[in-house]
Amino acid sequence: MKGVILNINPDVEIADITHHVLPYDLLDGALVIGQAYKYFPPKTIHVVVVDPGVGTERRPLLVSAGTHYFVAPDNGVLSMVYEREEQLTVRHITSDHYFLQPLSTTFHGRDIFSPVAAWLSKTWQSNAFGEEVTDFVRFTLPKPKPAGKGVKGVVLRADNFGNLLTNLAAEDLPQMIAGTSFKMRVGNAEISKFAQTFSEGGPNEPVLLMGSSGFFEVAVNRGSAAKVAGANRGAEVTVEFA
Amino acid sequence: MKGVILNINPDVEIADITHHVLPYDLLDGALVIGQAYKYFPPKTIHVVVVDPGVGTERRPLLVSAGTHYFVAPDNGVLSMVYEREEQLTVRHITSDHYFLQPLSTTFHGRDIFSPVAAWLSKTWQSNAFGEEVTDFVRFTLPKPKPAGKGVKGVVLRADNFGNLLTNLAAEDLPQMIAGTSFKMRVGNAEISKFAQTFSEGGPNEPVLLMGSSGFFEVAVNRGSAAKVAGANRGAEVTVEFA
Amino acid sequence: MKGVILNINPDVEIADITHHVLPYDLLDGALVIGQAYKYFPPKTIHVVVVDPGVGTERRPLLVSAGTHYFVAPDNGVLSMVYEREEQLTVRHITSDHYFLQPLSTTFHGRDIFSPVAAWLSKTWQSNAFGEEVTDFVRFTLPKPKPAGKGVKGVVLRADNFGNLLTNLAAEDLPQMIAGTSFKMRVGNAEISKFAQTFSEGGPNEPVLLMGSSGFFEVAVNRGSAAKVAGANRGAEVTVEFA
Repeated sequence: MKGVILNINPDVEIADITHHVLPYDLLDGALVIGQAYKYFPPKTIHVVVVDPGVGTERRPLLVSAGTHYFVAPDNGVLSMVYEREEQLTVRHITSDHYFLQPLSTTFHGRDIFSPVAAWLSKTWQSNAFGEEVTDFVRFTLPKPKPAGKGVKGVVLRADNFGNLLTNLAAEDLPQMIAGTSFKMRVGNAEISKFAQTFSEGGPNEPVLLMGSSGFFEVAVNRGSAAKVAGANRGAEVTVEFA
Repeated sequence: MKGVILNINPDVEIADITHHVLPYDLLDGALVIGQAYKYFPPKTIHVVVVDPGVGTERRPLLVSAGTHYFVAPDNGVLSMVYEREEQLTVRHITSDHYFLQPLSTTFHGRDIFSPVAAWLSKTWQSNAFGEEVTDFVRFTLPKPKPAGKGVKGVVLRADNFGNLLTNLAAEDLPQMIAGTSFKMRVGNAEISKFAQTFSEGGPNEPVLLMGSSGFFEVAVNRGSAAKVAGANRGAEVTVEFA
Repeated sequence: MKGVILNINPDVEIADITHHVLPYDLLDGALVIGQAYKYFPPKTIHVVVVDPGVGTERRPLLVSAGTHYFVAPDNGVLSMVYEREEQLTVRHITSDHYFLQPLSTTFHGRDIFSPVAAWLSKTWQSNAFGEEVTDFVRFTLPKPKPAGKGVKGVVLRADNFGNLLTNLAAEDLPQMIAGTSFKMRVGNAEISKFAQTFSEGGPNEPVLLMGSSGFFEVAVNRGSAAKVAGANRGAEVTVEFA
């Protein structure tokens, strides 16, 4: 893919965000790109190849969202981008004279996404690549629900360090921010400390943190919260306030 | 290696192809570079460090192949490049004033390949680095053999997703392309569907695909064909037509 | 982090050294950066994010060391740099108008280190970022000790190939360089061959090599010395000369 891009436009700067999205995992991909893209400069073109199974039945999309561009399959991987950006134009890429020939059926990242991104970086004419569509695939994150004197949420994912990212944001737990004492349960773990940094927890003690993505996370200092709690993606998270 | 290159020529653009070639695995390395290089722009210099054990007994080579350059050990890792390119000049790199000093015996990627690639990118005088040789190491991929009303081939490798890359190309199976019904066997799996995309297979159903490298691949939709078939590199593949 | 940097200074060239430092492992991080930095061009700014737990209690540092710059947490990860460089200015980064807002407590790599590195690459005024400090954290590698007619050392780390990096340098074992016969023990392995290249050892035979970092290493040709010796970081290494 990098070769294809540089062959068309040798002046672009290519930056890898990650090669460690879990295979076939759209939610993981959606969280990674939804979190990272906004730190890049305006007019960055994000090439998102998360579903290696992309084939003819997935439309390739060119999305203009705020000051950013995205080339991605129409499989929901841009859902967090759609949620955040108000100025949104989504096009179905159909102008196949931009595609690599012969077109493979199994590597659209190389044969469609990369040349389209490279040509866009030269022309900035996104309307040349296809018509606007409105029926693109999007999913929404599960929302926390009230439960007794607290809320019930879910683990969205465990990162490489075993930190458990929840779907609970600051606005879901104003009492937490205000310092109310609480009891959180996830898997086998019970958490009652809201820490500022990873290092505040004792050995194997899971603590709650405000994660860098704006969601609360459960973490263990120099250890894996996923292991300590015996919990992973999809695990229920309950928070009760005193 | 990147530091060495940028120290000599700060104006080059460095692109990582992969850091996930299997350790010590020349075939895997040969397939990866043989597949990827041709998508890069003319005058790309490909630095190939696949055998970490490269030492004095392996000659460092500078290869000019078509419009591309390669700096690599003389261990066969460029075999697919040699096979594809007709205009081929292979030099044994001996001009040691280009090498980093002191020269380590164990990291020629840093001390020989990188400075040679960086100096080449400034001078484009490949004959300055050493004399041409013709006795370089090359291997050929195993060729499919006729077997009954079909052919017998082999699995060349399993990729990160468990897709099984075979040594069967389109020209080996014209009946397949023509739509003749077939029965393929690899490991414990029997395959009779030639799919256009990964997603055409049911759960745990291995299907045959034309892979992006031009060889047929066995794949399982959102799963691992290697696991389903209980097969890996070297496994026999048989195809029978009705 | 790359997005933050490119947003501030689109003209920098970003090179990844590695994403495979062992989690939470300061010694591994210190060895990697201590070995790699000196190959990069003068005025390279090295952004070192090894401790993901960096929080308020770790000071962010801007270090000018010889011709190189480093942005890193004050946790000792730059110890090998401090040891090697005589011209050393260490500043506590406090000028928070350079920081990303809102400042997360858990991702200083993104919110502090990256913008500081990017602004430094534009202004080269390191004194703008904070006051000089002298009480920064540093550790020293364990030194080899004389033992009988030889020395006793330790395994500093096992790399991805299972090679065992020791703390024994050329000057610790002049007899080795002179060719004196020897017996080395590490874990279950006994080594008596000092090889020039990995390939000199037989199958599963551990040999001693002068590693590319200047320390002796124990390696097994196309195998893992760590597995063969049953040894890892911290294992004792003894060398006896005849």
